[in-house]
Amino acid sequence: MVVVSIAEQEWVEPLRDVAGVEVVHWDLKSDAPRDDIEVVVPPYMSNPKRLERLAGLPKLRAVQLVTAGYEHAVPYLPDGVQLANGRGIHDTSTAELAVGLAIAAERGIPEAVRAQEDGDWLRMAGRPSLADRHALVIGYGSIGRALAQRLLAFEVEVTAVASTPREGDDLVDRVHGIDELPTLLPQHDVVFLIVPLTETTRHLVDAQFLAAMPPNALLVNVARGGVVDTDALVEACAEGRVRAALDVTDPEPLPQDHPLWRTRGVLITPHVGGATTAFAPRALRFLRDELGGYAAGRPLRNTVR
Amino acid sequence: MVVVSIAEQEWVEPLRDVAGVEVVHWDLKSDAPRDDIEVVVPPYMSNPKRLERLAGLPKLRAVQLVTAGYEHAVPYLPDGVQLANGRGIHDTSTAELAVGLAIAAERGIPEAVRAQEDGDWLRMAGRPSLADRHALVIGYGSIGRALAQRLLAFEVEVTAVASTPREGDDLVDRVHGIDELPTLLPQHDVVFLIVPLTETTRHLVDAQFLAAMPPNALLVNVARGGVVDTDALVEACAEGRVRAALDVTDPEPLPQDHPLWRTRGVLITPHVGGATTAFAPRALRFLRDELGGYAAGRPLRNTVR
Repeated sequence: MVVVSIAEQEWVEPLRDVAGVEVVHWDLKSDAPRDDIEVVVPPYMSNPKRLERLAGLPKLRAVQLVTAGYEHAVPYLPDGVQLANGRGIHDTSTAELAVGLAIAAERGIPEAVRAQEDGDWLRMAGRPSLADRHALVIGYGSIGRALAQRLLAFEVEVTAVASTPREGDDLVDRVHGIDELPTLLPQHDVVFLIVPLTETTRHLVDAQFLAAMPPNALLVNVARGGVVDTDALVEACAEGRVRAALDVTDPEPLPQDHPLWRTRGVLITPHVGGATTAFAPRALRFLRDELGGYAAGRPLRNTVR
Repeated sequence: MVVVSIAEQEWVEPLRDVAGVEVVHWDLKSDAPRDDIEVVVPPYMSNPKRLERLAGLPKLRAVQLVTAGYEHAVPYLPDGVQLANGRGIHDTSTAELAVGLAIAAERGIPEAVRAQEDGDWLRMAGRPSLADRHALVIGYGSIGRALAQRLLAFEVEVTAVASTPREGDDLVDRVHGIDELPTLLPQHDVVFLIVPLTETTRHLVDAQFLAAMPPNALLVNVARGGVVDTDALVEACAEGRVRAALDVTDPEPLPQDHPLWRTRGVLITPHVGGATTAFAPRALRFLRDELGGYAAGRPLRNTVR
């Protein structure tokens, strides 16, 4: 039996019947309940410092995250221990919010919400639809594909971009390399960001990137706040050159007096891309599959370290 | 040559090359520019009273609308003249807004917009996703199908309802009859309205309908305001029993002091379902096809009278 610790108490029972696995509850707030834990599933959202306790587990072989991001866990990973991320778990919820933010921004939902307080029936016929827009999906992993699939259902022209160019799939003709952005940006009026935050992608969206976007184009960020240079974005939006719909910001949480809150053309949701009712059922399906496979001798499939 | 009048000046040139058709501009604000007009395409949105001028056309055979609704034109239709609606033109734009309203309401975009004014980073993890919801699409015509197709891309469980039950299609197993609503409503947590407003559908959503919806369910109206009994809706929302996202209201425009504006759980957009940049290209494609077909001897395909 592979001993697996699960941080979410309510997931322990549903995972009890996975063959070859013994599930124990451990939220990493205190020392491990036993020393034969082989796989740790840490809390979904919590202070990464709790992961220091991984060092005290002599039999630890793997850490299975339920987040797509994994950078926070790397510094705490003991030597020789595998790290796997929750690739796929958040596709549904994050792609849904990205589309929702884009429709809201294009169709004027924020203006309508503000007008509602004053009982003001705005005349806003003839606004842009999301349909017919040319959208750039920067980051074409699991969430990027889920996003592209939804955008296509809305009659959006989708161009996919990843770190390196490659063949297309059933959704796009080809996947462009990120070094093609200078050519691609002027041709796209909605830009979605769903890249991991790395040294390469930090401040990918800077003044030069924003200047290459067409006038009044929309930037949608459901990746990480640090992918965007916030000062440059505030400036470009304040000047009315571009608009933005952001589920993530830098810094985060955004301080109350930060200018981004009240910059024109900016819509902000407080990092709610992944944490919805869609999360738990998909996380459980994912864990059943990964842990059952691991117990049967199959490696974890989303190893990132 | 079939003489066709077009109310939108900017559509006259693009339609000039349709075979067998002579296009003239007439916005119905004054008398017709010639008396041999056989087909009239009235203005997209204007006072229906302008249609009184149809009576002065001796050769008039058909009126081709570019709206889905046609009730407004019926009283002005001369004897023996056909009326056709713009079935299909608004699918894209209206279905897009319906999905956008549903995602916005479920994911908390209105709350985020209001919090933005105060620079308040709300904690709102764990809200409902649109994914996994059970959605009832009441009205399964052209727009209803476009809506169902988009909802399915979001992993929504879709049940279709039309005036009479019928076989399903590539999207749904079957189409339920509207008399099944008492059984269906308690099983669905998002209800979309996209029926025409008729004597049968007026106040379809009344106190009894709202009471049959599950607690905290969401009503999305992109049909006509009169399909909903506004007083009953205000009461149900004020009591926190249901929520609503409305692109149409009754009355419309909604007077500034109307209680619906500030009823909790209500999101209102000012009837912008159809009028976006998606409209003109689809209307032109539709008119090229219908007018060209008519000139070649094919009847108009969306005849409603």
